[in-house]
Amino acid sequence: MTSDASLQPIDLLISARWIVPVEPDRVVLEDHAVAIDGGAIVEVLPHDDAAKKYAPRERVDLPGHALVPGLVNAHTHNPMTLLRGLADDLPLMTWLQEHIWPVEAKVIGAEFVRDGVELAIAEMLRGGTTCCNENYFFPDAQAHAYKAHGFRAMVGLPIIEFPSAWAKDRDEYFERALAVHDHYRGDALVGTAFAPHAPYTVADASFERIRTLSDQLDLPVHLHLMETAREVEDSKREHDLRPMQRLQKLGLVNDRLIAVHMTQVSDAEIVLCAEAGVSVVHCPESNLKLASGFCPAEKLRRGGVNLALGTDGCASNNDLDMFGELRTAALLAKGVANDAAAFDDAFALRAATLNGAKALQLDAKIGSIEPGKRADLAAVRLDEVETQPLYNVISHLAYAVSRRQVSDVWIDGRRKLADGALVDFDLAGVLEKARRWRERIAAIR
Amino acid sequence: MTSDASLQPIDLLISARWIVPVEPDRVVLEDHAVAIDGGAIVEVLPHDDAAKKYAPRERVDLPGHALVPGLVNAHTHNPMTLLRGLADDLPLMTWLQEHIWPVEAKVIGAEFVRDGVELAIAEMLRGGTTCCNENYFFPDAQAHAYKAHGFRAMVGLPIIEFPSAWAKDRDEYFERALAVHDHYRGDALVGTAFAPHAPYTVADASFERIRTLSDQLDLPVHLHLMETAREVEDSKREHDLRPMQRLQKLGLVNDRLIAVHMTQVSDAEIVLCAEAGVSVVHCPESNLKLASGFCPAEKLRRGGVNLALGTDGCASNNDLDMFGELRTAALLAKGVANDAAAFDDAFALRAATLNGAKALQLDAKIGSIEPGKRADLAAVRLDEVETQPLYNVISHLAYAVSRRQVSDVWIDGRRKLADGALVDFDLAGVLEKARRWRERIAAIR
Repeated sequence: MTSDASLQPIDLLISARWIVPVEPDRVVLEDHAVAIDGGAIVEVLPHDDAAKKYAPRERVDLPGHALVPGLVNAHTHNPMTLLRGLADDLPLMTWLQEHIWPVEAKVIGAEFVRDGVELAIAEMLRGGTTCCNENYFFPDAQAHAYKAHGFRAMVGLPIIEFPSAWAKDRDEYFERALAVHDHYRGDALVGTAFAPHAPYTVADASFERIRTLSDQLDLPVHLHLMETAREVEDSKREHDLRPMQRLQKLGLVNDRLIAVHMTQVSDAEIVLCAEAGVSVVHCPESNLKLASGFCPAEKLRRGGVNLALGTDGCASNNDLDMFGELRTAALLAKGVANDAAAFDDAFALRAATLNGAKALQLDAKIGSIEPGKRADLAAVRLDEVETQPLYNVISHLAYAVSRRQVSDVWIDGRRKLADGALVDFDLAGVLEKARRWRERIAAIR
Repeated sequence: MTSDASLQPIDLLISARWIVPVEPDRVVLEDHAVAIDGGAIVEVLPHDDAAKKYAPRERVDLPGHALVPGLVNAHTHNPMTLLRGLADDLPLMTWLQEHIWPVEAKVIGAEFVRDGVELAIAEMLRGGTTCCNENYFFPDAQAHAYKAHGFRAMVGLPIIEFPSAWAKDRDEYFERALAVHDHYRGDALVGTAFAPHAPYTVADASFERIRTLSDQLDLPVHLHLMETAREVEDSKREHDLRPMQRLQKLGLVNDRLIAVHMTQVSDAEIVLCAEAGVSVVHCPESNLKLASGFCPAEKLRRGGVNLALGTDGCASNNDLDMFGELRTAALLAKGVANDAAAFDDAFALRAATLNGAKALQLDAKIGSIEPGKRADLAAVRLDEVETQPLYNVISHLAYAVSRRQVSDVWIDGRRKLADGALVDFDLAGVLEKARRWRERIAAIR
């Protein structure tokens, strides 16, 4: 390549057979390229135009691939990746009280959290996920691990009314929450949100403090809400209010609220969520596995609610596969709505990208392939047996691809997965640590 | 290796970290081996004992893998793999009448069927499926392709009351059905079944002939049954009977019946199926995608009905991924039954193997890893990120593995997939044919 002073130098040019930018909606660009500089998307343009305009320091050609925005897992408990498959096929309370909680009580700490997050990062990158909304204890250890690996995350600051290894009482939960928030304020990759566990484990007094602080600090509030019918019944008995009514009374139903699960959301509450700008995170596989109920995902979509997707933790899924999750979401929504036209392929992809970004208040920064946004990208090979023949790229992304067809991933313009291999990642070390945790946990039980 | 006259010569010894034989139920054998000779399983025994007893001509070591029976896809339309993703997210009748049928009318023939089946074989082998129950036109072309590739299949002999490229009228459908049956009678890999399309497209007179012939020839009867609520309503209006009652009156409700979908099965009909020995094939992903209704899979299981699993065709799924299907079946059944303990991991694996074999009347021959059965086997790598840590092998097989972790497959003792690569298979040629069909079909539309 001869140097040409008229060409604009940039860091990276990715040329792909197809680009699905998500915004504009439902568009598939053929033979286009993404110009990237300083970690940001500079332009999306046809191959030929790119060759005449840019002098990239690095080129990546993806001749049989679709390039999509990196997937956003809008609800997960990634340290629990170390508990994958520990206990299955059990009623919710047996599962929690006899299996998950007793083990967690013995292992939770900064080391467990770090090792679980690192294993999760490997799995997420291999599956095209570039951002997650985390919800667990020891957010400082999580944040440190995400930052060390250049992975984008919103870290939940847990608030719950019982003591844990992380904090002994309400004051300490808030104190530690604010310390983590202060430490990561303005960080390019790691953000924070309040993460009150759920209405049934958090008192009004804590919710009031959260409301004041989230207003002052402009922080999202990420909580499990109306996951089961029992939660709603208990709340009505205890507070004479449905959980959502209680949150509304406490001033928390607003555009900072990230409401997870919502299997029991009523038609009136769907209107309320749309009007207030609440984001709902649908976790279809976890809801099925724990028999929590069916979230009316198509009603939420039609009602104009921002609907994102999450895997939930690996102990109730048992993976962090966002391509699988968006497929399950699209299939299940049709069954639940009794309408084969419900929750279509393009919406499923949007829910797993831009809507997730919006839930995390990151939609100005990520979630679509648009100039000015950060370059969080995933490439998916479509030239494999399982995605042939190919009539419709978006259909295959929603219904036919396996996460193992993800070949390349960039976060903030940095390549994290190259032709299926993790970049600058001690995979053997991470797997060895997972094996050691397995030995230790199996011995506890 | 020194020759030792005391050792028994055999064709193949497969040593695996874990073997899940399916029968006995819920068992995981560690560090065992399968001795294979003449395509049959001779013995399943510990590694160390195998070394002292057998002199295999070939050895395969699977140090991080689980060896399971090859998966049985108990309902599919594999030629339709060429229509994968042609049309999605549409109401059932729009999808059929405006997209699938008009295209099929222009392409169906022996060539389309052969090329679709070959593409499907590649996908099935890569996903650990070793046997399928086929349901489409041109069963002669299907049978030829399956036999040529050494793939085990039961080929449906279609009966329907409208003319097609395969047959012009009822007599010709039966005539051609019997010719295909005669040709493959006694074949080691390819069997036949009657495949009357569905109660709403087949007249009593045809069902009566099928009943007589299936009794005489001992042939299974494979049909779509009670897929939607509308089918039941229509039958009640037209025949004053539910579809199952009509079949019972016609003498077809017996242990040869393979009833597919059954979303509308009543509690009384579950009892009837159990008593009569009917096999039900549950296709959860197709039922969701077409919004056909929720099959009460857990009720069928508890009722003692032989419950198998199928993907249905690629035009309504959009894959032939039986690991994905058994996972969806296990998750969805819990949601539908409102019971997290429903349809557990071991049952899901059994439904996708031995129960499928039983539905096809092949359970004396395949479906589990037992001495005397044919060696239809799949090996799954469990040492990858997505299946670590590992507490429970069967849990991971049901909830965490991706089909892309399938490394090796044998059918009738012959290796068809070796460390992820298809053996003696012209993959490039098959993909090229799929691309040509894509061009042709895209031009029709």
